[in-house]
Amino acid sequence: MSGFTQNDQVAINTIRALAADVVGKANSGHPGAPMGMAPVAHVLFSKFMRFNSKNPKWINRDRFVLSNGHACALQYILLHLAGYKVSMDDLKSFRQIDSITPGHPELGVTDGIEVTTGPLGQGISNAVGLAIAQAHMGAVFNKDGFNLIDNYTYVFTGDGCLQEGVASEACSLAGHLKLGNLIAVYDDNKITIDGDTAVSFTEDVEQRFKSYGWEVLHVEKGDDDIAAIEAALKEAQKTKDQPTIINLKTTIGFGSLKQGGHDVHGAPLKKDDITQLKKKFGFNPEETFAVPQETYDIYNAAAEKGAKAEAEWKDLFKQYSEKYPKDASELTRRVEGRLPEGWEKALPTYTTSDAAVGSRKLSETTISKLAEVLPELVGGSADLTGSNLTRWKNAEDFQHPSTGLGSYAGRYFRFGVREHGMAAICNGIAAYGGLIPFGATFLNFVSYAAGAVRLSALSHLRVLQIATHDSIGLGEDGPTHQPVETAAWLRAIPNLAFWRPADGNETSASYLVSILSQHTPSVLAFSRQNLPQLANSSIEKAAKGGYVLEEVENADVTIVSTGSEVPLALGAVEQLKSKGIKARLVSIPCFEVFDTQSREYRLSVLPSGAPILSVEAYSTFGWGQYSHDHFGLKAWGASGPYDQVYKKFDITPEGIAKRAEKVVAFYKKRGQPVFSPLISALDDVSDE
Amino acid sequence: MSGFTQNDQVAINTIRALAADVVGKANSGHPGAPMGMAPVAHVLFSKFMRFNSKNPKWINRDRFVLSNGHACALQYILLHLAGYKVSMDDLKSFRQIDSITPGHPELGVTDGIEVTTGPLGQGISNAVGLAIAQAHMGAVFNKDGFNLIDNYTYVFTGDGCLQEGVASEACSLAGHLKLGNLIAVYDDNKITIDGDTAVSFTEDVEQRFKSYGWEVLHVEKGDDDIAAIEAALKEAQKTKDQPTIINLKTTIGFGSLKQGGHDVHGAPLKKDDITQLKKKFGFNPEETFAVPQETYDIYNAAAEKGAKAEAEWKDLFKQYSEKYPKDASELTRRVEGRLPEGWEKALPTYTTSDAAVGSRKLSETTISKLAEVLPELVGGSADLTGSNLTRWKNAEDFQHPSTGLGSYAGRYFRFGVREHGMAAICNGIAAYGGLIPFGATFLNFVSYAAGAVRLSALSHLRVLQIATHDSIGLGEDGPTHQPVETAAWLRAIPNLAFWRPADGNETSASYLVSILSQHTPSVLAFSRQNLPQLANSSIEKAAKGGYVLEEVENADVTIVSTGSEVPLALGAVEQLKSKGIKARLVSIPCFEVFDTQSREYRLSVLPSGAPILSVEAYSTFGWGQYSHDHFGLKAWGASGPYDQVYKKFDITPEGIAKRAEKVVAFYKKRGQPVFSPLISALDDVSDE
Repeated sequence: MSGFTQNDQVAINTIRALAADVVGKANSGHPGAPMGMAPVAHVLFSKFMRFNSKNPKWINRDRFVLSNGHACALQYILLHLAGYKVSMDDLKSFRQIDSITPGHPELGVTDGIEVTTGPLGQGISNAVGLAIAQAHMGAVFNKDGFNLIDNYTYVFTGDGCLQEGVASEACSLAGHLKLGNLIAVYDDNKITIDGDTAVSFTEDVEQRFKSYGWEVLHVEKGDDDIAAIEAALKEAQKTKDQPTIINLKTTIGFGSLKQGGHDVHGAPLKKDDITQLKKKFGFNPEETFAVPQETYDIYNAAAEKGAKAEAEWKDLFKQYSEKYPKDASELTRRVEGRLPEGWEKALPTYTTSDAAVGSRKLSETTISKLAEVLPELVGGSADLTGSNLTRWKNAEDFQHPSTGLGSYAGRYFRFGVREHGMAAICNGIAAYGGLIPFGATFLNFVSYAAGAVRLSALSHLRVLQIATHDSIGLGEDGPTHQPVETAAWLRAIPNLAFWRPADGNETSASYLVSILSQHTPSVLAFSRQNLPQLANSSIEKAAKGGYVLEEVENADVTIVSTGSEVPLALGAVEQLKSKGIKARLVSIPCFEVFDTQSREYRLSVLPSGAPILSVEAYSTFGWGQYSHDHFGLKAWGASGPYDQVYKKFDITPEGIAKRAEKVVAFYKKRGQPVFSPLISALDDVSDE
Repeated sequence: MSGFTQNDQVAINTIRALAADVVGKANSGHPGAPMGMAPVAHVLFSKFMRFNSKNPKWINRDRFVLSNGHACALQYILLHLAGYKVSMDDLKSFRQIDSITPGHPELGVTDGIEVTTGPLGQGISNAVGLAIAQAHMGAVFNKDGFNLIDNYTYVFTGDGCLQEGVASEACSLAGHLKLGNLIAVYDDNKITIDGDTAVSFTEDVEQRFKSYGWEVLHVEKGDDDIAAIEAALKEAQKTKDQPTIINLKTTIGFGSLKQGGHDVHGAPLKKDDITQLKKKFGFNPEETFAVPQETYDIYNAAAEKGAKAEAEWKDLFKQYSEKYPKDASELTRRVEGRLPEGWEKALPTYTTSDAAVGSRKLSETTISKLAEVLPELVGGSADLTGSNLTRWKNAEDFQHPSTGLGSYAGRYFRFGVREHGMAAICNGIAAYGGLIPFGATFLNFVSYAAGAVRLSALSHLRVLQIATHDSIGLGEDGPTHQPVETAAWLRAIPNLAFWRPADGNETSASYLVSILSQHTPSVLAFSRQNLPQLANSSIEKAAKGGYVLEEVENADVTIVSTGSEVPLALGAVEQLKSKGIKARLVSIPCFEVFDTQSREYRLSVLPSGAPILSVEAYSTFGWGQYSHDHFGLKAWGASGPYDQVYKKFDITPEGIAKRAEKVVAFYKKRGQPVFSPLISALDDVSDE
């Protein structure tokens, strides 16, 4: 063994026993993968990983992702050993309420956790994003003799992650992009929850990754051949211009009486099993949560090496700052997450004399302006660039230089037709730091990325999804492409801002708030069809998430709408006026943001006194929070020219006015006071 | 050329010119792929496909799936030529409102369309399902000398579909299952919307499919070498025990001035381009929508051959009926979609003396009973069998017999960790006929399958998704696994029934209605934690989607809840009683079904007169349609023992009662009549 001693074997067995204890005390969790992966985890963390556990946010640290997040007992144990803020008590609180050691790793909860994993396939896709971010930041900031950004991204993955489509998407792209600093370890233990992989997963994984362009290495005896593990990791580090996957044969639950079987995957070991395991490893079976000093010593040394590496990096950065002061301050600004002074002045404003254009076009204008002032803005489309209009003039593609198609300094991504991979990669890019990523597709296909989008929100990552073709207004492509339920889904996700701007000023507002929201992802929905510029919109008003577009005293009805239906509703307001009906008009481009406004403001927008009718070319599901009656789609859209599709569903000024009249008549006849739906008995506000 | 004449080249060019005309007249659509794939489409439909265009539902027809559904001008043209109910006028109405030739192929809209495609990756995954269904039905019903079910499934796919994760999942499983009757043609034209595939898709597709266990064939000159195309298709047919993919090199938009470029992908050809194309092909450039008689002749001959094949099949079936009368009537019953007499008697009923168990366990009991009486019920889990509890005793796995793990007659699927592929495969199985498929995963990961789930609903396919671990009640796995927004999303999908049963009787009701709903998919959400059997539940009442569990005269408040929160709400009702507050309790296991009940019934369940408080451990988004005040999760769940998680969010009898008291006090203070939220001004009902 190259530099390994008996102490390393002790450390590995300590990790295994500790995993059994952690899961055993919680009486819940997954001991199998931690025990099987203990050797590679030990070699990686003690010999390879560059980290400073006292400054877990050092920008050039190596990133570690546990894609098989259910194995997080392993990760928490490593963080504890390596000196991160994870105490033995925290390990004892595994999977308990409000602990920092929850059932799956969560970004923001535990120091040293780089991304939120557990939902299978996400972690390895996030890792691709982390590696992209490293490659890009390195290309932008490194100079001759100053490899400021050159960290590796390591990721552990099991069979489960590799079966997931999202991982296939991300790994195919990683191969295309030749991400040399990305190193995956595949825990090839032949066991999934349903039993042997023979029941469902018999593909040749090595051949698949070769087909993606990865380097494939192989360690046959992953349970004990730590020299081979070390050699493979060294080889992987050396490989440039290709990501590497190490196929590591392990025994799930190594050491348990049930090792090698699926029973050991997701349930605590029995007490006598833990006893025999500790005996077998030479530990005192009466002791729990025991760590020999030799084990701590190894990790202390690793942590010291890492701290020293950061100190050296700081020296390097000091020299860099002297030689390249502008780049240094720019890097600092971006890593600290500060936006450039006055960037928001780049946001375009509009008046009614500006042309009616599709809001996707307005989005393009905005992106083009922002790309100039926000070098941290990077992104691209899932192969719909010409439809999403997300590529700014003179953008350079993010590509390996050998392709002749761009460079790693390029800021525009060609994600391919890989929506889920795209969103998960964007999560990784955002988690890296210094970058604001966006992805783009049709709104309807953001659904393909649902698994990653909810994790953007749970992980508090500023990721923008540009979602064009946002309704039946896309026309001829028809119901397969027309979102109906998508807005309801996105609005129901906590900490996610779904924007549907009605015009240019609202579009600027959507970007303004999305970029200012450092811990909230946004989905920005834009129309294919042309929309006029509204008279009373403004960035300031729209940035509140909702506001009054047309006010009138003693209104008979309030009409509330979003996006491309706002101008139709405005037409209805005018028609109603000619019939002597006084209608207010409210635009709510973003529920999530509107809901954060003061109660007073919200009630000024949607007051009691007159009934409120919502208009949106989606399912009306969820509008009950703002309106008494809801006009929308009862079912699916239709294929045809967009104006005819709107007409088919009567979502026209006439159709809206007709329904508003009905609402007015109904509530007049009822003859009772009308209260704003915003008023809730649960608000803790006793007066109205 | 083996049997080909000049007329075949004319037919191919006719298809190309017609595609240009169809897209040109609509001034919308995708001419590129139809023009590029015309040769293989012609060879397949004129020489290989076994179909009777006059009886498009013949069970043993070959299935054709256009996975690159945007190329549907091609499919509509083929259906027209082959004598399906697609007239020249229908081709002229391409992408127009209410035409049978919408922008993407829709099952149920056009004869001969087997599955709804367009959302990329779905079609090829559906095709895997169709091939599974064929293999299974064949294994169940074929006898020596009676190959009643032996059709092929052909699928065309472009680069886009193959980049999608869902396709990776389904194709990996197809290889594992050795589906010999599945034949894919990959239109390898090197062009996607973003340009050359070099920008994002440089993996070795052939090697990837080899890694999945597919046979890979190759046709270099797909634009004109129809003999090679024929040879490849013949070879593919011969291949047993492996699906085949034919890598067909083509030129997108072949014949156009812009051929080979991405401009020809998704926009109509210019007029002068169509003119030169027709000239080049020897057609009259003044004529549009022209089909030479020789072309019709070829397709008439193919249709006649197909009609003859069906006639022969009917003869064979007659003999089969004589020899195997029980099998024959069973096959007929299943193909006609009739359920066995009295099947519903198998559904278990419960009383309060039955044990409290997790509703996933109740689901297991129900599936086990139904598996006995419904041989058409097939399904499995995305590698969560032991958690979803979806495998009945003595179930046989659907596996290739060579594995020794099951047979094609097996009804239990091991989908692997492939949720999206699973749902898309289930769509294909349901579309085949004679089968009722289910998939299973945690509710949270149904989101991974969003792209396929919405298509189940749009396609009117009876697919069941068994979704266990349906809330924070799953406990320790934590917020990464706890659905919050998922119910809102599923409830907003038209024609999809999201069920969340509260006990055993409701569980039986959910299966009853799901199986009776021949044209509606269902998602059935079940708890991990134990739930008591309710006193006043019944299958009959729950089958209405919503009903009164506890009635009281002159109620002060109605509490409405679902699933595992119903017993907690019942506890609250009792606590309120002791405080002199009269509370009604309503259970709404399924919004979609409840909404189909009569207005009178719905208002009897959620009447005016007292305020209504909803309780559900999800986002409250969407409850406005049933309740005045809503108690649920404001954000994400938490990791911990489930009872402590509920306590953390105050979703307990005490917490519910406290809020109900607030609601009662609030509305008493307001002193105004309280109207049911079910009453809408847009209902066309003038009295209340």
